[in-house]
Amino acid sequence: MQIGLLGYGTVGKAFYALCEEQPTLKVNTLLTRRPRGLVCREVSSFEEILNDATIELVVELIGGIHPAYEYISSALRAKKHVVTANKAVVCAYYRELVNLAAENGVCLRCTAAAGGGIPWLSSIGRVARMDKITAVEGILNGTTNYILSEMTARNAAYGELLKEAQQLGYAEADPTDDVEGYDARRKLVLSANLAFSALLREQDIPCIGISRMTVADIAWARERGLVWKLIARAEKKGDAVSAFVCPTLFPAATPEAQTNGSANLVSLYAGRIGKQSFSGAGAGGWPTASNVLADCLQIAGGAASFYSDREVAPLPICNDGEPKTWLFRSYGRYAVRQETVADALEAFAAVSEIDPGALLAHLPYGML
Amino acid sequence: MQIGLLGYGTVGKAFYALCEEQPTLKVNTLLTRRPRGLVCREVSSFEEILNDATIELVVELIGGIHPAYEYISSALRAKKHVVTANKAVVCAYYRELVNLAAENGVCLRCTAAAGGGIPWLSSIGRVARMDKITAVEGILNGTTNYILSEMTARNAAYGELLKEAQQLGYAEADPTDDVEGYDARRKLVLSANLAFSALLREQDIPCIGISRMTVADIAWARERGLVWKLIARAEKKGDAVSAFVCPTLFPAATPEAQTNGSANLVSLYAGRIGKQSFSGAGAGGWPTASNVLADCLQIAGGAASFYSDREVAPLPICNDGEPKTWLFRSYGRYAVRQETVADALEAFAAVSEIDPGALLAHLPYGML
Repeated sequence: MQIGLLGYGTVGKAFYALCEEQPTLKVNTLLTRRPRGLVCREVSSFEEILNDATIELVVELIGGIHPAYEYISSALRAKKHVVTANKAVVCAYYRELVNLAAENGVCLRCTAAAGGGIPWLSSIGRVARMDKITAVEGILNGTTNYILSEMTARNAAYGELLKEAQQLGYAEADPTDDVEGYDARRKLVLSANLAFSALLREQDIPCIGISRMTVADIAWARERGLVWKLIARAEKKGDAVSAFVCPTLFPAATPEAQTNGSANLVSLYAGRIGKQSFSGAGAGGWPTASNVLADCLQIAGGAASFYSDREVAPLPICNDGEPKTWLFRSYGRYAVRQETVADALEAFAAVSEIDPGALLAHLPYGML
Repeated sequence: MQIGLLGYGTVGKAFYALCEEQPTLKVNTLLTRRPRGLVCREVSSFEEILNDATIELVVELIGGIHPAYEYISSALRAKKHVVTANKAVVCAYYRELVNLAAENGVCLRCTAAAGGGIPWLSSIGRVARMDKITAVEGILNGTTNYILSEMTARNAAYGELLKEAQQLGYAEADPTDDVEGYDARRKLVLSANLAFSALLREQDIPCIGISRMTVADIAWARERGLVWKLIARAEKKGDAVSAFVCPTLFPAATPEAQTNGSANLVSLYAGRIGKQSFSGAGAGGWPTASNVLADCLQIAGGAASFYSDREVAPLPICNDGEPKTWLFRSYGRYAVRQETVADALEAFAAVSEIDPGALLAHLPYGML
């Protein structure tokens, strides 16, 4: 199968190298702003890929919403399959892109958009075809997990570690998307949409990142044998979905607490098969490119449509079962942020597994 | 796709029910010794399935080596696809069955044969197509994991818990295959064969089960914050494979140590994507049937051949890098069983991460 590749950054480079080893796949043309000296044809205009009838599959690895959206949608209209690692664009145009693929009888895959190299979205698609998924959750952002892990291990401040992560290339110059939880939320939207045949909107999902975490928060948790992780979770509740992204406490002896650095750990819960968890590298050129390649191999092997043929429907976000305003969630229960200490005390007494008194004693330092 | 189903036990029943919800799959005929009163045709002779040209896919869920081998091989020769959950027969006739499928241009899948409902073998097949897998390992037997978990949790003796497991239906009347590690070893052979394009023989792989584990062993580990798990592991070493099944010590705060009951936890290590781990229900009707169904859906979706098209080659077992005779392996290192205490002392000093003195002090009670 002849491929038109858009972008030659870290993931693009790794994908190109992986493709050279695959007998059934060939990068025919690369869209790039500057010459790369590759064996394949290099072009600077997307039209040349779009109008090349020998190219059956477009792999989009340029990122961002525009012009990625225009490239992907025109490729699908031209009846070319599309594989992308771009969560922002698939999240923002989920219904349009999924429908476009179906209408044109071509395949759209984005497994690398969530979980790096972990076969996460493809596993959700697999289970959703034969079981009822009730919840998806996990550690879905490598940058924040790196910062939280290092804060925990080294007792260092958030700002210091963010700078370090930027110097090491783990965090962007503008880290907002990662540290405020928006990246994890996009991945959650993709996961939940696939799991529940839903159509969630990013902006409807409450999202609290890690930028307000303090050394005192970390120390407070450590003293109690707990570890903070940024968790994204969505649970089907009747005809609605309860969903959020927020820092969460886990006992030190849990798989979540032990997921360090840029690793991801994600779980799905389904009625018949129970809980399944997946962990591995959540970022990086090779892991991410491997999921891009796996999508391409599935398409070359005859995979059809999106992950499933189910109709997607908008579902409201309904966190009614949860405390109204919350900041931190403990293992299986919630540690909430309330407007007053009295409200918080009441809320904790109702929902927290950990000692409300001990938690409240700490609140003035980091949580209220 | 029309299916001929062989067997209607726990997994067969669950698979039949799952199939009824699938628009692309239909159980056309069931091979069963006694009438089940189902909508589909029920027959007592395999020939009726073999000679029915409308049946494109045979699902073998009767277990055991004979007549399963004869059924599977004649179905493949008749150019019918085959899906099976039967590790014993695929393990014993790996090369024959894989070659038969390839020669007849049909598909053979056995994802449910290892890891219950976890997409383990299919993930190995996926990664093996694009990366070099260097090792596979994990907790692959639910019965022994249940017994070890309960021994650890309740301080109860092996024999007592085995009886209990038999009464609960977790263990067979003749528990040999499970408790001596042979079941885990077969799953390891399938995993390693797929991961390394290898052809291992069960009997070449050293295998130590849990039937000699004592309450003292468990207590000794607990005092040190360690937990016993029955681990199966295979690692590619040059042109050979180092492989074994044996009880292994893990610190209590590791994912392995926290895998309790009949759950499985399996990991693969690959050059480019690093480590990936998968956990979930390792047994049970619904989980196992879900992997059978996933295989069927892949075949109906156009999957070809075995998991990969690579040639398989016999590889020798070479545990040279390991201690010559060993009984227990600690986390990342080995705790060995030697003929004499002096030998053991020397071996421990060389290989053990845990205090050799403390371990030796215990040896007379459980390990020598």
